[in-house]
Amino acid sequence: MSDSACQQVERLFHRQIPVTVAIGVQVVECDETGLVLTAPLAANHNHLGTAFGGSLSAVATLAGYGLLWSLLGDDQLHIVIRESSIRYLRPVRGEIRAVCKPPEAGALARFKAILEENGKSHVELAVEIIEDGQVCVEFRGNYVAIG
Amino acid sequence: MSDSACQQVERLFHRQIPVTVAIGVQVVECDETGLVLTAPLAANHNHLGTAFGGSLSAVATLAGYGLLWSLLGDDQLHIVIRESSIRYLRPVRGEIRAVCKPPEAGALARFKAILEENGKSHVELAVEIIEDGQVCVEFRGNYVAIG
Repeated sequence: MSDSACQQVERLFHRQIPVTVAIGVQVVECDETGLVLTAPLAANHNHLGTAFGGSLSAVATLAGYGLLWSLLGDDQLHIVIRESSIRYLRPVRGEIRAVCKPPEAGALARFKAILEENGKSHVELAVEIIEDGQVCVEFRGNYVAIG
Repeated sequence: MSDSACQQVERLFHRQIPVTVAIGVQVVECDETGLVLTAPLAANHNHLGTAFGGSLSAVATLAGYGLLWSLLGDDQLHIVIRESSIRYLRPVRGEIRAVCKPPEAGALARFKAILEENGKSHVELAVEIIEDGQVCVEFRGNYVAIG
């Protein structure tokens, strides 16, 4: 189930958002515990040989999209991002690995109930980019789903 | 002077940050009034056919880097981004066009003086992504230069 969920989200990315192919995004985990994306350093390094901030931001943004798609299970929904903030705490020296956990159960239930009632709802998602057990990047994004 | 400044920054991008080639970033203005980058929608659209948030964020991040490089005129400096925030106000339906203005003269002078004295200094830069005269995206980034 998890493998197929990964493949579904990855296919959606690669078909509909061409930059995900260019930067080599892969969905490596996708289940009820969250979504994990990777992207290789080779396509995403900066002038210092570490991961470029813009790539980190793009991969984190995608992790939130992917998590919402997989949680809502409806690729006819429009999901957009309204705003986000990102803190670059440490350079990423190898593969980019972005982890997005689902919102806590109460927030998720509220998000889904409002979406069903109003046809539109928003939720805040946190993404971390982790290397060698350390958080290198903290991202928060506010996403809107429109039914 | 302006054309050659554009080419210098664009060359730096394309040589040192490969994703700038993948997403088709061009430096179209670079002078004392600011820096303007473009990127085509074809390489940067999302599942809705408008510009992908992650591409907008990457292009805005680059605009800040490019402006600092051109202002400081020293590609041996290390410039990194520490944190940023972005608000997506309206969808971008065509070419991405990111405008970064220099900080006001006092802030720029302080930034340069501290960099010279301490070998390290930070500055906040604002970038707007504009289409048909309307601001579609507002970005603020805190950049650090290390001498």
